[in-house]
Amino acid sequence: MSEAKVRLYVDQPLGPGQPVSLNADQAHYLFSVMRLGPGAAVLLFNGQAGEWRATVETAGKRAGSLRCAAQTAPQVMPPDLWLLFAPIKKARTDFIVEKAVELGAARIVPVLTEFTNAERVRVDRLQAHAVEAAEQSGGTFVPEVAEPVKLARLLQDWPEGRRLIFCDEGLHDRPVGFGDLAATDAPGPWAILIGPEGGFSAAERARLHALPFARPVGLGPRILRADTAAVAAITLWQAHLGDWR
Amino acid sequence: MSEAKVRLYVDQPLGPGQPVSLNADQAHYLFSVMRLGPGAAVLLFNGQAGEWRATVETAGKRAGSLRCAAQTAPQVMPPDLWLLFAPIKKARTDFIVEKAVELGAARIVPVLTEFTNAERVRVDRLQAHAVEAAEQSGGTFVPEVAEPVKLARLLQDWPEGRRLIFCDEGLHDRPVGFGDLAATDAPGPWAILIGPEGGFSAAERARLHALPFARPVGLGPRILRADTAAVAAITLWQAHLGDWR
Repeated sequence: MSEAKVRLYVDQPLGPGQPVSLNADQAHYLFSVMRLGPGAAVLLFNGQAGEWRATVETAGKRAGSLRCAAQTAPQVMPPDLWLLFAPIKKARTDFIVEKAVELGAARIVPVLTEFTNAERVRVDRLQAHAVEAAEQSGGTFVPEVAEPVKLARLLQDWPEGRRLIFCDEGLHDRPVGFGDLAATDAPGPWAILIGPEGGFSAAERARLHALPFARPVGLGPRILRADTAAVAAITLWQAHLGDWR
Repeated sequence: MSEAKVRLYVDQPLGPGQPVSLNADQAHYLFSVMRLGPGAAVLLFNGQAGEWRATVETAGKRAGSLRCAAQTAPQVMPPDLWLLFAPIKKARTDFIVEKAVELGAARIVPVLTEFTNAERVRVDRLQAHAVEAAEQSGGTFVPEVAEPVKLARLLQDWPEGRRLIFCDEGLHDRPVGFGDLAATDAPGPWAILIGPEGGFSAAERARLHALPFARPVGLGPRILRADTAAVAAITLWQAHLGDWR
């Protein structure tokens, strides 16, 4: 059998002998862009059933079908970590989504804060970007990108039992603290909140500091861009509280 | 006095009353792009003397002069950490340089490995990118971007006393290990080596594992892109061995 050159996310069941039909975009990508034909091998995942090796059966311009052969990797779920971030410029927002998928976040939520200054957030585009990041990084899980929500509303409806880490730019001189959280907090669901380039407003900071489920952390003595802060915070969370331990 | 809207790196002495002359590019940026004129305030740094507030004295099309008033921030040097990375696609290489500056690396070295697959590395462009990252992130230090060097040569001429962390993609199941390094290694100079997208060759891995100054680490159970690995590794190094502690 030939080696599979393409990894594709499909929103369909996968299993031994399972047929999989392609939509127009997927058929275009496989048969026109990647120039695969009948008999070619493709790796498929659906976010729930691991990775499967499948073979092209029919290849058309706007449709096609594959059939699953064997599972090639088990399903790997990320830890229960949400990434909440204030959207910034398009390229850097895309970058945050890509890195959250690679580093292992379970859910991604754009959050509108007082100082958020972003173009309109297109959730469908960010979700497609998350799919592409999983396809390219060998992941078997695609985090949901949620609809944007205002910070005040998010905190008001906060789910019980989930702890919230927020990166406070006023804490430059304080040690990082993810290790402290690992020592004092019981295992369970978490969320990381990254503010906009302009930081949180004084009212937002005061509100966050007063919440019983919120934990302020610092991220070193230098000023980090929002996208850098997101990657650094997920990394430290994974190393101290997640599945990198 | 008006608020300074521009931060500029200048390769000139800074001090009380010190005059600073601008080259054509800097004059264009300040006077044509940012539309500053005589009397406007600018923040300057030269990588050695902290940050200074200066005032525009003369503003021309291809030249100009400023005069330093007062120091606005002390010089902050990063820890003695080198980032060695195999260059990848242009946008992601730029990204690695930007993030290394923000997170705090002292020197950046493009390394050519067996599987490195990059366009020609333009060191002058990467150095300019490092300057821009420092200007925008409020840093007072600009790491040197060195000429590209072959991995074999780099290891042959390795400086005594500097430890080398390399991210081994074969170590997915092993805990991260930066905390272990902090527990067993004495303080001192370090380097982080990030391989290309294709990983190190078998010969390179064997050579790296045999070096007495090299420490293999893993970066979690998922496959990370080279740019993600660079940011994650510097973050963990800073938190365990650098100035984020």
